[in-house]
Amino acid sequence: MSETSLTEPIVGVDLGGTKILAVVVTGEREIIARCKKRTKPVKGCDAVLGRVVAAIRGALEQAELEMEDVSAVGIGVPGPVDSEQGVINAAPNLGWGRVEVANILSDRIGRPVFLGNDTNLCTLGELDLGAGRGVDSIVGVFVGTGIGGGIVIDGRLIEGSSGTAGEFGHMIIKYDGAKANTGWRGTVESLAARPAIVARIVEQIRGGKKSVLPELVEKKLGEWDPEAANTQISSSFLAKAYKAGDKVVRRAVDESAYLTGIGLAATVHLLNPEMVVVGGGVVEAIGEPYVEIVEDAIRANTFPAAHRDLKVVEAALGDDAGVLGAVSLVRRRLAEEPALSGVG
Amino acid sequence: MSETSLTEPIVGVDLGGTKILAVVVTGEREIIARCKKRTKPVKGCDAVLGRVVAAIRGALEQAELEMEDVSAVGIGVPGPVDSEQGVINAAPNLGWGRVEVANILSDRIGRPVFLGNDTNLCTLGELDLGAGRGVDSIVGVFVGTGIGGGIVIDGRLIEGSSGTAGEFGHMIIKYDGAKANTGWRGTVESLAARPAIVARIVEQIRGGKKSVLPELVEKKLGEWDPEAANTQISSSFLAKAYKAGDKVVRRAVDESAYLTGIGLAATVHLLNPEMVVVGGGVVEAIGEPYVEIVEDAIRANTFPAAHRDLKVVEAALGDDAGVLGAVSLVRRRLAEEPALSGVG
Repeated sequence: MSETSLTEPIVGVDLGGTKILAVVVTGEREIIARCKKRTKPVKGCDAVLGRVVAAIRGALEQAELEMEDVSAVGIGVPGPVDSEQGVINAAPNLGWGRVEVANILSDRIGRPVFLGNDTNLCTLGELDLGAGRGVDSIVGVFVGTGIGGGIVIDGRLIEGSSGTAGEFGHMIIKYDGAKANTGWRGTVESLAARPAIVARIVEQIRGGKKSVLPELVEKKLGEWDPEAANTQISSSFLAKAYKAGDKVVRRAVDESAYLTGIGLAATVHLLNPEMVVVGGGVVEAIGEPYVEIVEDAIRANTFPAAHRDLKVVEAALGDDAGVLGAVSLVRRRLAEEPALSGVG
Repeated sequence: MSETSLTEPIVGVDLGGTKILAVVVTGEREIIARCKKRTKPVKGCDAVLGRVVAAIRGALEQAELEMEDVSAVGIGVPGPVDSEQGVINAAPNLGWGRVEVANILSDRIGRPVFLGNDTNLCTLGELDLGAGRGVDSIVGVFVGTGIGGGIVIDGRLIEGSSGTAGEFGHMIIKYDGAKANTGWRGTVESLAARPAIVARIVEQIRGGKKSVLPELVEKKLGEWDPEAANTQISSSFLAKAYKAGDKVVRRAVDESAYLTGIGLAATVHLLNPEMVVVGGGVVEAIGEPYVEIVEDAIRANTFPAAHRDLKVVEAALGDDAGVLGAVSLVRRRLAEEPALSGVG
């Protein structure tokens, strides 16, 4: 195996429940090529990892590079990771148990592979190349179909003793709340992720409250089906209705922002970071109003000393946070141990 | 100023709202002398710091040492601390705003002084000399009149960007709960600290539920006064009634343990530590049954991957955790920078 180097191109991959994104990043940290594929998790672990390899090859082809030109591959996966071993312990979104992702991929592509949790890597990406540049201690929270997070303290990613750190979405903010599908009550994710927003909206509409949302959905999809609301109502529908001043949608989205802020207030009391970065599909779609409510909730529920110098900002990298964070992970690992060849 | 050394004796001080404890610790980490004084915060900041100096001198006298024999003094204070500057930003229990504790004390005693938050230092003490020996990542939680905490990750105390990290007690676990005196709703402290336990018990007794507690209090103090229950019902009364199987007391104490566990479940999801140490007056008095409920609540409300290897243990150092942690702080600072002379 050739020697690895920080100036050689690096491939970053974000493996999600619905899509795989692979990019090629130069030594100057510029994305020079990208390739997207659908994940198709129903086809099983082996097929999904095959699609990851295809996405990597697709991005390299577009960049007119060979696999050997790349120093290493970083990949973000949706679940707790043993980063040293390159193993994902479980990925419910993919239907996976324990998988030795780094070993398997490295065997297939002949390059070192480094593995990280997806929202941990999004946070790392925002720190190194996005909203958190110049900051040492940062908490990232990403609100979408689920809610995930990441923590960096004094420049170091906190992965936890078994790779599960940063599981912000499973913090309990209403211990006597309704049971979520995790079996736990009143977690931030069960109360504030997109499915919770949609459930609140559907309940209001069924109760006779007026909303532009059914009409918006009908126009675009032909039919409004409350039973399928969770798949029908994407973040962009929410954003359209929100911007149109729809009261039902505003209340549900604002509640999500407030409850995310409550979870973050607890996090700020525990960790006292310099910055909180808020991103993910819902936040990207709604933008500033969402982040403002999050910030207000944090400030109203923490000590002045804990929030006086705190910055609360919107994520800057959008869908690229994960792949850029995966590249950051590679750069950090190679910088720590220049002779390190990853797992494989 | 003489050169500092890790083999010279160190003085550790715990400055609390009601008492000051100072100890002398040898290079072999043995406590060879101790001195306790009442804090008397009503007499003002200057008088309290004078009593701290008196406690330090008292401990030295008992050890037959002079001030010059000591390499440095470490002190834990009840509030957010700028550890680099040796400044406490606020101490509500003492009625203090910002005080340059390290500078002031160092001027008076002519030795370097290092400052830390009290429960941060208790956690450090448990890590270095108590229940957490051999562990790298630990969360400490101390349940008494208030609830405080401390976080150590990869052997490093997390103090936060403005010194307020580890404020476990102010995490919100019931966002729609009753307002506490902080103005926030449903924090762990407002729901699980001793005053919350006592309030629950008094409410039950007033509602006609039978309890041995009023009789226990009468025997010892001459009179049972529900209005003054919070000062009357110490942790040792709670422990006596608990051990006697008193249902009212058991329910209230068990609820406190459960809710502390809920807050810790959120903390474990965020930080995925190797160990959780639970201590403080209430936990010391009740012992194992309290810690068991905490542990059950953590395990029932976290991912298997987050708690599979987690140890949940009772603190081992009791009242000495704070002073021993203060000594640990000094040892760490001197080890980091051998030429460092602290603030002063």
